[in-house]
Amino acid sequence: MTQYKNVETLDWVDAGEFSQSWLRMIDQTLLPVELKMLDCRTMETVWEAIKMLRVRGAPAIGIAAAYGLCIGLQPLFVDGNEPSESEFFAKLKTSHDYLAGSRPTAVNLFWALDRMFSKAESLRGQMAPGLLAATLLAEAKAIHEEDRQICRAIGNHGAALVKDGDSLLTHCNAGGLATADYGTALAVFFAATEQGKKIHVFADETRPLLQGARLTSWELWQRGIDVTLICDSMAALVMRQGKVNAVFVGADRIAANGDAANKIGTYGVAVAAKAHGVPFYVAAPVSTFDMTIADGSLIPIEERDPDEIRCGFGTRTAPAEVRVYNPAFDVTPAELITGIVTEHGVISPVNRENVAMMLAK
Amino acid sequence: MTQYKNVETLDWVDAGEFSQSWLRMIDQTLLPVELKMLDCRTMETVWEAIKMLRVRGAPAIGIAAAYGLCIGLQPLFVDGNEPSESEFFAKLKTSHDYLAGSRPTAVNLFWALDRMFSKAESLRGQMAPGLLAATLLAEAKAIHEEDRQICRAIGNHGAALVKDGDSLLTHCNAGGLATADYGTALAVFFAATEQGKKIHVFADETRPLLQGARLTSWELWQRGIDVTLICDSMAALVMRQGKVNAVFVGADRIAANGDAANKIGTYGVAVAAKAHGVPFYVAAPVSTFDMTIADGSLIPIEERDPDEIRCGFGTRTAPAEVRVYNPAFDVTPAELITGIVTEHGVISPVNRENVAMMLAK
Repeated sequence: MTQYKNVETLDWVDAGEFSQSWLRMIDQTLLPVELKMLDCRTMETVWEAIKMLRVRGAPAIGIAAAYGLCIGLQPLFVDGNEPSESEFFAKLKTSHDYLAGSRPTAVNLFWALDRMFSKAESLRGQMAPGLLAATLLAEAKAIHEEDRQICRAIGNHGAALVKDGDSLLTHCNAGGLATADYGTALAVFFAATEQGKKIHVFADETRPLLQGARLTSWELWQRGIDVTLICDSMAALVMRQGKVNAVFVGADRIAANGDAANKIGTYGVAVAAKAHGVPFYVAAPVSTFDMTIADGSLIPIEERDPDEIRCGFGTRTAPAEVRVYNPAFDVTPAELITGIVTEHGVISPVNRENVAMMLAK
Repeated sequence: MTQYKNVETLDWVDAGEFSQSWLRMIDQTLLPVELKMLDCRTMETVWEAIKMLRVRGAPAIGIAAAYGLCIGLQPLFVDGNEPSESEFFAKLKTSHDYLAGSRPTAVNLFWALDRMFSKAESLRGQMAPGLLAATLLAEAKAIHEEDRQICRAIGNHGAALVKDGDSLLTHCNAGGLATADYGTALAVFFAATEQGKKIHVFADETRPLLQGARLTSWELWQRGIDVTLICDSMAALVMRQGKVNAVFVGADRIAANGDAANKIGTYGVAVAAKAHGVPFYVAAPVSTFDMTIADGSLIPIEERDPDEIRCGFGTRTAPAEVRVYNPAFDVTPAELITGIVTEHGVISPVNRENVAMMLAK
């Protein structure tokens, strides 16, 4: 497959006129076998793309939904038509509810749709529907741009921790495919590379769903970063061989004391990093912190379908009758985390006070 | 699938007459989907079974080859015929060489074939070919029985380290499918269960080739032992959850100081066990020790086909162009090993002096 260094996960293609523009995205279900762009010209296409995981990752889903809402309004403006205000808000409401049903457990989806809806509500009666639509498109672009800025800031703060010649290790996929742009952990690698630092990255394949193999190794290779794919069980060995200078991973949820939930296997990497004296960093936006959760023991761990392990990728590899434990996440305690890289700066050492101080910035 | 508690990996089926008997084995390539016995009535069938990994594991291959040599002699004795001594030794030599070509890297294959050949040579001129054939069959059975005794002795020494109610963890497959009978690490679980101890076992799936999922979980389930299959990356988590009382793994090669090479991922398990205060045991026959190797740094680590990781089990899961590091083994240093369980007893603490003392027994 050809390398394309600047493919956008999500891209609003501006055709000059609002009703003729569209959302272009990478169809992630075809990766890493094929890089194919999906052009979403109807709200139904966006709904299907979110539902079928063609776009995935909390920030990326939110951005896609915000653009999807704009696409939902387009039919009102075809051929220079201008709807009434009540027609506009009726369509906005049905589009909001329709898109919210695409992935009912994705918190960022509701957050983005509600932000768009509130924006329109706040301007109701103050401008014509055509201008309202333009304002909503600007709001979707703002959501997109804010996420891009957060990724860049995380990347820059993290890159300061990376030295020229470093070999780094990551687990799962905290990359650009899940966000507007650069991702979180991978943003660090991209930013370090942009600063002219020569780096190498070990990508854990990340069983059972292999996000590291399917997405991370693809993203890094795609952007021309020197990457080596390994099985999760090889991370400790490459650390012992002295081949890892630091670990960078993402996070799904971080407690007030800095305990971080992330993809299953992250904790084992942190334990191995500690044993080998390798710095272990979590990269995540401040929106990942849940200050209502005192520590990691209170983070619920979702268990997933046993057949992800017994029957991965279509081939039966274990007896159907064998019991399986398949936690989706694990929690890495703050004491194993050297630092948490946020868009505001790096929290280090990781403790309740330093977390609170960074979030107050 | 039905559970059969006492299926033999290898079984000589005695039909009363030497030339009518045969070797029955589990076709391991069909596991865990199907338990099918393969009846080997010709030497070619045995050769194909070794070549195609229908039988695998050093001891099991050696036993199969020894029986295969007997099957190779059978045509000389059909219908009550008795060959001349020169006919007998000519056939023995061609059969020996033919079987030795089935898996040219399997040391145990040559060891067993050479032992059989030397036995016949030592008796040349002292007995008729019919009696020589019977003596060789007895020698094959002796190789089989010796391995069974070693497995049982390892199991019994190891079971003394297991308490009623323990939850244990193992990596890869050090079970009966690779040996005459009970295996090495799994022998410990079988012996503990026979002693009436109620145990639970976590089986790591063991990427990339999933021997833990395909073979270990099947063997334990088959024998009625409470087993839970996990991904390799979950081992550290279940240790942190307090669910692991001890780890037992096999070994492929052990250096004179006790450093042990075993399936990739074993080292990471040992690091996690140390971090959580969980005892870590290696179970292996004394034949696994290579006293010519001073320490683990001198054990060469074979690298395997990258597509085992990029393209496991038929589905492409990583870009074909991405570099892969795929070591087949890793070395766990003696200081992380609580004890090495051999057929002579348990070496603990593990160091050069104690290894030498145990091997001198």
